[in-house]
Amino acid sequence: MQLNPEDLVVSRVPSADVESPYRPAGDRFVEEDQQVLFSSDASQLGQWLLQGQTPPCFEMAGPRRRTFADPRELTCGIVTCGGLCPGVNNVIRALVLALTYGYGVGRVLGFRYGYAGLSSKSPREPMVLTPEVVDTIHQQGGTVLSSSRGPQDAKDMVDTLLSRGVGALFTIGGDGTLRGTSALAEEIARRNLAIPVVGIPKTIDNDIEWVDRSFGFVTAVEEAKRAISAAHVEARGALNGVGLVKLMGRQSGFIAAHATLSSSDVNFCLVPEVRFALEGDGGLLRVLERRLERRHHAVIAVAEGAGQELMKATLAQDASGNARLGDVGSMLHSALGKWFSSQGMDVTIKYIDPSYMVRSLPANSVDSEFCLLLGQHAVHAAMAGRTNMMIGFWNQHFTHVPIPVAVRQRKQIDPDGELWQRVLDATGQPAKLAD
Amino acid sequence: MQLNPEDLVVSRVPSADVESPYRPAGDRFVEEDQQVLFSSDASQLGQWLLQGQTPPCFEMAGPRRRTFADPRELTCGIVTCGGLCPGVNNVIRALVLALTYGYGVGRVLGFRYGYAGLSSKSPREPMVLTPEVVDTIHQQGGTVLSSSRGPQDAKDMVDTLLSRGVGALFTIGGDGTLRGTSALAEEIARRNLAIPVVGIPKTIDNDIEWVDRSFGFVTAVEEAKRAISAAHVEARGALNGVGLVKLMGRQSGFIAAHATLSSSDVNFCLVPEVRFALEGDGGLLRVLERRLERRHHAVIAVAEGAGQELMKATLAQDASGNARLGDVGSMLHSALGKWFSSQGMDVTIKYIDPSYMVRSLPANSVDSEFCLLLGQHAVHAAMAGRTNMMIGFWNQHFTHVPIPVAVRQRKQIDPDGELWQRVLDATGQPAKLAD
Amino acid sequence: MQLNPEDLVVSRVPSADVESPYRPAGDRFVEEDQQVLFSSDASQLGQWLLQGQTPPCFEMAGPRRRTFADPRELTCGIVTCGGLCPGVNNVIRALVLALTYGYGVGRVLGFRYGYAGLSSKSPREPMVLTPEVVDTIHQQGGTVLSSSRGPQDAKDMVDTLLSRGVGALFTIGGDGTLRGTSALAEEIARRNLAIPVVGIPKTIDNDIEWVDRSFGFVTAVEEAKRAISAAHVEARGALNGVGLVKLMGRQSGFIAAHATLSSSDVNFCLVPEVRFALEGDGGLLRVLERRLERRHHAVIAVAEGAGQELMKATLAQDASGNARLGDVGSMLHSALGKWFSSQGMDVTIKYIDPSYMVRSLPANSVDSEFCLLLGQHAVHAAMAGRTNMMIGFWNQHFTHVPIPVAVRQRKQIDPDGELWQRVLDATGQPAKLAD
Amino acid sequence: MQLNPEDLVVSRVPSADVESPYRPAGDRFVEEDQQVLFSSDASQLGQWLLQGQTPPCFEMAGPRRRTFADPRELTCGIVTCGGLCPGVNNVIRALVLALTYGYGVGRVLGFRYGYAGLSSKSPREPMVLTPEVVDTIHQQGGTVLSSSRGPQDAKDMVDTLLSRGVGALFTIGGDGTLRGTSALAEEIARRNLAIPVVGIPKTIDNDIEWVDRSFGFVTAVEEAKRAISAAHVEARGALNGVGLVKLMGRQSGFIAAHATLSSSDVNFCLVPEVRFALEGDGGLLRVLERRLERRHHAVIAVAEGAGQELMKATLAQDASGNARLGDVGSMLHSALGKWFSSQGMDVTIKYIDPSYMVRSLPANSVDSEFCLLLGQHAVHAAMAGRTNMMIGFWNQHFTHVPIPVAVRQRKQIDPDGELWQRVLDATGQPAKLAD
Repeated sequence: MQLNPEDLVVSRVPSADVESPYRPAGDRFVEEDQQVLFSSDASQLGQWLLQGQTPPCFEMAGPRRRTFADPRELTCGIVTCGGLCPGVNNVIRALVLALTYGYGVGRVLGFRYGYAGLSSKSPREPMVLTPEVVDTIHQQGGTVLSSSRGPQDAKDMVDTLLSRGVGALFTIGGDGTLRGTSALAEEIARRNLAIPVVGIPKTIDNDIEWVDRSFGFVTAVEEAKRAISAAHVEARGALNGVGLVKLMGRQSGFIAAHATLSSSDVNFCLVPEVRFALEGDGGLLRVLERRLERRHHAVIAVAEGAGQELMKATLAQDASGNARLGDVGSMLHSALGKWFSSQGMDVTIKYIDPSYMVRSLPANSVDSEFCLLLGQHAVHAAMAGRTNMMIGFWNQHFTHVPIPVAVRQRKQIDPDGELWQRVLDATGQPAKLAD
Repeated sequence: MQLNPEDLVVSRVPSADVESPYRPAGDRFVEEDQQVLFSSDASQLGQWLLQGQTPPCFEMAGPRRRTFADPRELTCGIVTCGGLCPGVNNVIRALVLALTYGYGVGRVLGFRYGYAGLSSKSPREPMVLTPEVVDTIHQQGGTVLSSSRGPQDAKDMVDTLLSRGVGALFTIGGDGTLRGTSALAEEIARRNLAIPVVGIPKTIDNDIEWVDRSFGFVTAVEEAKRAISAAHVEARGALNGVGLVKLMGRQSGFIAAHATLSSSDVNFCLVPEVRFALEGDGGLLRVLERRLERRHHAVIAVAEGAGQELMKATLAQDASGNARLGDVGSMLHSALGKWFSSQGMDVTIKYIDPSYMVRSLPANSVDSEFCLLLGQHAVHAAMAGRTNMMIGFWNQHFTHVPIPVAVRQRKQIDPDGELWQRVLDATGQPAKLAD
Repeated sequence: MQLNPEDLVVSRVPSADVESPYRPAGDRFVEEDQQVLFSSDASQLGQWLLQGQTPPCFEMAGPRRRTFADPRELTCGIVTCGGLCPGVNNVIRALVLALTYGYGVGRVLGFRYGYAGLSSKSPREPMVLTPEVVDTIHQQGGTVLSSSRGPQDAKDMVDTLLSRGVGALFTIGGDGTLRGTSALAEEIARRNLAIPVVGIPKTIDNDIEWVDRSFGFVTAVEEAKRAISAAHVEARGALNGVGLVKLMGRQSGFIAAHATLSSSDVNFCLVPEVRFALEGDGGLLRVLERRLERRHHAVIAVAEGAGQELMKATLAQDASGNARLGDVGSMLHSALGKWFSSQGMDVTIKYIDPSYMVRSLPANSVDSEFCLLLGQHAVHAAMAGRTNMMIGFWNQHFTHVPIPVAVRQRKQIDPDGELWQRVLDATGQPAKLAD
Repeated sequence: MQLNPEDLVVSRVPSADVESPYRPAGDRFVEEDQQVLFSSDASQLGQWLLQGQTPPCFEMAGPRRRTFADPRELTCGIVTCGGLCPGVNNVIRALVLALTYGYGVGRVLGFRYGYAGLSSKSPREPMVLTPEVVDTIHQQGGTVLSSSRGPQDAKDMVDTLLSRGVGALFTIGGDGTLRGTSALAEEIARRNLAIPVVGIPKTIDNDIEWVDRSFGFVTAVEEAKRAISAAHVEARGALNGVGLVKLMGRQSGFIAAHATLSSSDVNFCLVPEVRFALEGDGGLLRVLERRLERRHHAVIAVAEGAGQELMKATLAQDASGNARLGDVGSMLHSALGKWFSSQGMDVTIKYIDPSYMVRSLPANSVDSEFCLLLGQHAVHAAMAGRTNMMIGFWNQHFTHVPIPVAVRQRKQIDPDGELWQRVLDATGQPAKLAD
């Protein structure tokens, strides 16, 4: 994607310009002009410079010397939206601790059930989040605030913020949530209010752009790998055994790809970004058949959004506005069964859908640390008056990413890129499964 | 079940009565007449004695002083049948090590793909199993010998044993496998051959009688508990969240019951042994509805064989001759959705089917030890010439159980017994979910 | 040990003989005369009967029709003593839930820091334990009540019970704790008070008699096996690598023995019950040397109480009155180093002491269920007015065991018994490591 | 550290300039001039550009169009040196698979026991490593090739390479190993041989420069976090309980720091890079005492190299030439005991040293993938004729790092940097523990 430097300018709320109460050791604040290069590829940089262009940069995250208001007088809000992901409670906890201990914020409200909790028709009062309340929540999966899908009216939500006296809001959610965050920030700007709204990107599919890796993803891949191991064991347990695993990944197959790379048992990795054919000499069925004849067992990992073109289109959407997908796992299960039956080949297919077991886990150690730092940087950003932005991680630095640029497109596997090449090397599958 | 002492007499092959090469420390052999009381309940024992009856006893397992043949001249066979279960490789390994190091058996053959590997149409040659070959197999789930379902002709299999020179056979499998083992032993007896056939009961459902607990069961419950935790996290993650988990258990709900007791998150445990109604004021739907109104979330654990009477009968059978079950998980998922939709109640249902992830794990430590001892005792039994029997575990002792008595009925949860009472106490669910 | 039937009679407090508010499904109470045979070995039973003796039996645990007092008017107390063990929080939780929901007890107090919390000099007020307070405590290792070692004056503790209005007390602890429980019960009897005191035996070493397996033991063995795996990996990572693991087991080597049986990596298992020599041709050093020459690596698992006779006696005791042990791990580490150095053999020794990592874990699923049932049965026992007893598990039944008979001797591995024979078979070590 | 562009030029062996048999999809080779910016901080880049300097860059890793020789005629060697680390077997496996399947290399030799296996006095023949041999080795911790510490004579090792016909060598090891790799490459250059030598940096301490994160580190931190959890449970289990955990980290405290950030239980993190005092009002002892008075429990995580200045210097070295460290864990254990005893404060200290349990684990999923990619890139580098270099990972790209620049200094925590600030925020410990 073409990124223009002006796209990366971060919005700010009107600021009272107060000295920050946060005190880093050695007084190490991040300066207002510190930036992180978008590309660390020297040749790309050279091209920009040769053409007299400013290379695109992200604003660097971190504590600033001045805050937009006196934190000790603020009430802050937190809301968690969309599907579960390992680490949401860690982020909530990190926000509460950084607000309370880092900036002396006196009151933190947790709005329940996603954006529904910010509407005037909220089913339940917000939780008051203190360090005691959040002390051990990170040991459990899910979100103590509960969640919901779908947008709410921005005006209504801003009214709630005002009526609750909320002076800064943190949203934890995916693509749709971030669009809602952006709408909120715009409505706030329209009213000329000084309420920063900062997003922490949550996507178990790892499909939000300009975040090298999203939180919970490593934990999810570890569990996906367990499902693949189970499929492998089942495949080897029978003559011509086929283990078929459906993994998350509606439009981006990162979980399937990385689980394939971290495992060693996958023979076919199918993702939304790379079309495949079932029929024909180069299609999945015949290629699989030849492998079974040779090795007597095989494992297929398929992302839920793969192979949609092989199924009849459905136009329904879920509450978040995501198109409902055809069930590629069941479709493959059935297609394989029919094929081998028609070929008179005795094949045993075991289908595993670990589904919610992947996303409901508590974060492992590397995700726990990542969530801690995302939360801390979100607090620094909001206190510095940044708004309509989310925290990113890029080229070894935490960054500020304007939400409009983050949601402009979805991060996907590049079928001509390095990651997919590694998957091809690891599985030995043909570059094209074409009829 | 009424057990008669004569039912518990263990068959033997014609014996050459050789001194055993196995040497326990302190020369601690088990004597021929050592027995384990069927019941440790003193009042039951008193009744038998008062009535002048001999209380039923199992033959105690363990090394005998004399073997039915010279082990050093034997070739032994191993076969694994039916579905996977944690620990099968541990049993294979224990058999090979006890045969090789304990008795000096020179050659052990592993027949592949279950009883199919013992037929004259076997798809593949048997593996030669040495201590080196089995050295680390227990670290992997599944079975290195692979498996298959369904019976084979006993005469054909005995012919294979003879042509391969197999002098003792060990079978690892469930109900159907044990019936096959019995048929084999009977055909061998008919031909007056001295080939003991000993079964090691394998059932992830823990539904074989006279085995206090079957191998792999503890490992399976641990994984089932993980699925329940995931369901609980999902249930709490939404307003009126319902987590629904389908667990193994075709005719016996032991996995569901024990996972419920070892977890603390299940509100409704549904098993094949206890009928439940969906409709009506005391049926599942309304009872669940009242709980959601009160607590806003709930978890249901359902064994796959539960609620069959609520679905249309299907007459199909799988290759092992098991009746195909209606899919109670999908049925409940759909019934709950319809009900709450009809009630205008906004409910989020998350359905988890951990399926093969439960049974493909390697054995945990307690199951590993149990498999080791089952394997060793099976070797002692075969070397002592016992046949048409399986190894049991009862009242703190390993035992010899004649297969005909073991397969006479299936072990099930007693709806009036202690285990089910504990489940009712743990879940708080009504004793009857009746319309 | 010789057990006389009269030793197994369980004490009772003066009873007001009230109808129990606990309602099992199907009205399945345990009758007052139900008993569990001590031995399920038929030949032992036959001997008793032939000699006209009553075979020793344990009182069977379970809910009785009548309680010693009206539970709804009771305050109950819980105290946890001695070292940590997986599952203590599960037992606390089970007690609170069974008292509250099963019997309608209105108030449960958790005394902190062991018996110190029952003394008049208690460092802190007791916790009020409600179902909400204990809701998720079982997910964490350790004890929410904290613990301490050592006895307190029984009179002082009874005074505390009276001043707090405690009508029944549950103690969770080991050998020393149970002696304290017995002293408490005797002081209560002396004052003719109706305060039952019931113990739940806690011993990570599994060394309390008449409990087939103590809670937390399976979890501990699983972690011990991890340490052994680490030692095995280290041993194979170097030329003549030796992995040395010290495991818990002051006077009983059950953890070392079962971890050896559940692993497959131990070549030498050393326990307190079986003496071994270092020096001499049959001593550990030379036998190990010969193994290294043959296989180039070895793993030793040693219980902390093994080999004490090889070290200088120390007379010190810890606060619980346990003799301080010599550090056999360091002694072996050093002795091995010196020996191979004197032999000019290049050996790499890696010493692992997993120590507190073993005992601080949360209980796994099988221990969780076991803790639940122990807690429930302790509540049933106390409500039935039993006192000076602990809950046991024997021949597939929960039992009531008088504490005096439980603490008369320590459970140990029988060097001539089956368990040790299995260890010898599994390791291949000589029956005697003698000089 | 000041990096000059010329320091980052990668050495090459004399090349026969052959067309590469490796075929990436879409023909995506890395071009010879592709480079990765050392710094993604835009202001640093600006300074270089303003001063007319070329910003330092690493050569980008990846497959090149031309190889230095025909891979199909090559024999390649692999050697693993120094201490164990999760993932070594994954790297070995990745090398073998990439060489065999990616480039058609016909023969891969695994030299055993580190550099000792490359000397003329090697204790054992090298293993022939085929895809079958390495098929499942990644499921086990440690190294199938075994290891050893310490250097060997470079001339002797080159002689071995020649006599074995080795045309490219891969070394897996730490600081010392890389120096040996450099010496080897220089000796090869001296003889004008075309044998590339490529290192894969292995350091559980994560202390090698220009590798953003070393392999196995995430797995190690996960296990370190387990030890910290155990310490936390123990600390809370007693009045004034102190859990003390010693973690790896001889000169760099990254494991301690990241385990602290991923856990939430550490109150004092002590690392080699930051001095601390025991005595005095701001020293550890009094600060800890004040915490115990306030909270009654505390956890200390100490890296093994911390606090060396508080112990008497020792001059001994281990076989790798590392200075032997004083045992800071035992020192603290003893100092704390003495202090609180002198203060008359009843404190319970539990000391945990998870030691080898941290480094002997198999790699988790994220480390598994990382090892796979390191191995593949090492193969691409060697086939492209690069030598005297190691594979790095920097700013989201795999890189080629000349070994001389990699070993020039050790990577350490910057006490004024962001990581340490996060640790201070997470623990709440004073920025200086000074007397």
